[in-house]
Amino acid sequence: MNNNKMKIVETLQDLKITLPGLNRPLGFVPTMGYLHEGHLSLVRRAKKECTSVVVSIFTNPTQFAPDEDFENYPRDIKRDLDMLNSEGTQLVWIPTAESMYPENYQTWVDVEQVTKLLEGRYRPDHFRGVTTVVSKLFNAVQPDKAYFGQKDAQQAIVIEQMVRDLNYQIDIVVCPIIRESDGLAMSSRNTFLSNPERQAAVSLSQGLLMAETAYQKGERMADNLRQIVSDRIQAEPFTDLQYISCADPSSLQELSGKVDDCLISLAVYVGNTRLIDNVICRENSS
Amino acid sequence: MNNNKMKIVETLQDLKITLPGLNRPLGFVPTMGYLHEGHLSLVRRAKKECTSVVVSIFTNPTQFAPDEDFENYPRDIKRDLDMLNSEGTQLVWIPTAESMYPENYQTWVDVEQVTKLLEGRYRPDHFRGVTTVVSKLFNAVQPDKAYFGQKDAQQAIVIEQMVRDLNYQIDIVVCPIIRESDGLAMSSRNTFLSNPERQAAVSLSQGLLMAETAYQKGERMADNLRQIVSDRIQAEPFTDLQYISCADPSSLQELSGKVDDCLISLAVYVGNTRLIDNVICRENSS
Repeated sequence: MNNNKMKIVETLQDLKITLPGLNRPLGFVPTMGYLHEGHLSLVRRAKKECTSVVVSIFTNPTQFAPDEDFENYPRDIKRDLDMLNSEGTQLVWIPTAESMYPENYQTWVDVEQVTKLLEGRYRPDHFRGVTTVVSKLFNAVQPDKAYFGQKDAQQAIVIEQMVRDLNYQIDIVVCPIIRESDGLAMSSRNTFLSNPERQAAVSLSQGLLMAETAYQKGERMADNLRQIVSDRIQAEPFTDLQYISCADPSSLQELSGKVDDCLISLAVYVGNTRLIDNVICRENSS
Repeated sequence: MNNNKMKIVETLQDLKITLPGLNRPLGFVPTMGYLHEGHLSLVRRAKKECTSVVVSIFTNPTQFAPDEDFENYPRDIKRDLDMLNSEGTQLVWIPTAESMYPENYQTWVDVEQVTKLLEGRYRPDHFRGVTTVVSKLFNAVQPDKAYFGQKDAQQAIVIEQMVRDLNYQIDIVVCPIIRESDGLAMSSRNTFLSNPERQAAVSLSQGLLMAETAYQKGERMADNLRQIVSDRIQAEPFTDLQYISCADPSSLQELSGKVDDCLISLAVYVGNTRLIDNVICRENSS
């Protein structure tokens, strides 16, 4: 029988002692904390599909470049724990950076091709940090299923590639993007937006929705789909479009001419805050 | 209850189905086949310490350079299976190269510093292949303990580093070198030696034994220890010394001047066959 009280562990040793007490199947939700409804949707899905749910909170330094926002990434562990407790999480693992990357640390997991495109073009070491830390978390927690958000579309594809390539016996479940009422994709980084930036930020999801609607009405030219999104975003102040992509949803190769299924994804600076969002358009989607 | 008959599986799917039927703790011995008493000593140690023993046989292409002996690496699966059956192995996994490295394979596990020295200087991509395949084998088999031979001294250190860095919940057990009656370290590659080369090859272990004896009698100068080994080997025909190292047994950093504990290791071509061997000298060893 499970103890109903949520357990919180910090060290790998305590994790190792606690895990065998959790009933299988075990669902795992890795997070960087500062949780929002997007994260909670993963926890709820894991609760639905698994007997036990483990959540990790770790703002992973190795996936941030030196000029990125690691130091300022929002943190509120107490609020996170309250939220996870309310959701009926069995175990929360909060490792320290010193224990995850001790002196003499020197091992990296690298997925080669699919990390070079899209986000990888602008954040060259980002995915190496992601795959390394996810590998470490997987090895420590040994879950049956792990839950990731479609918001980080490329991350989900990279993790799926890693799991396949490295023979991980873990099912990867990718869950839909959760949005604010006006459409803005939930993100811990939204907290950085000033009021006028927040208003401008709605153009990302609106642009994607306009492209999706055009696709549903028959628009199939990759250039036009990209243009619809960028026109909408560039009509707003504070926005600086880094990329807008219309790519193959599996290989992430950029598409040209007439497309079938496609992933339309983007990265945009709104003020100093870099936001991403995406939509998948499928021929046969209802 | 275990079925006493040894099971043999090829696919990851069959492995996944078979593993839950094995009682824990589970010991794992990864091999490249063409088994000898060195491998069997690992299996026996695993039998002693674990309830179930899984052996993999996979000549891993990614740890061979294009000019190395992958194509000619000796293979005799039938003989291997007979030997493993006699030892009471529960499960043998024989994956195919196509299933381990399918089209679009693109993930690598890389241990950085400790792979750059010794063997890594002469075989630059070797350890990336080793750590990647061992990671794949570990993820698939999920053992409690895994057994490696001291014969590949650096490999054992690299694997221990990887296990520590990537949070693998696996105990690594390193077992002593098993030698022929004249001292030659057992190796699948010994089968390549002609009779006169086989005679010359004994100089490797003899040189190391002479250095170890000198160490025990008080010799502590790294240069002298290296010289004792190389003098003995270079006195033989057919031998071409690639390196002889006297290094820190943990960091593998080459030592100079007066040493304490040290790993004396070497790689020597005997004819066309590259052989390695080593001995650890410790101040406090009995």
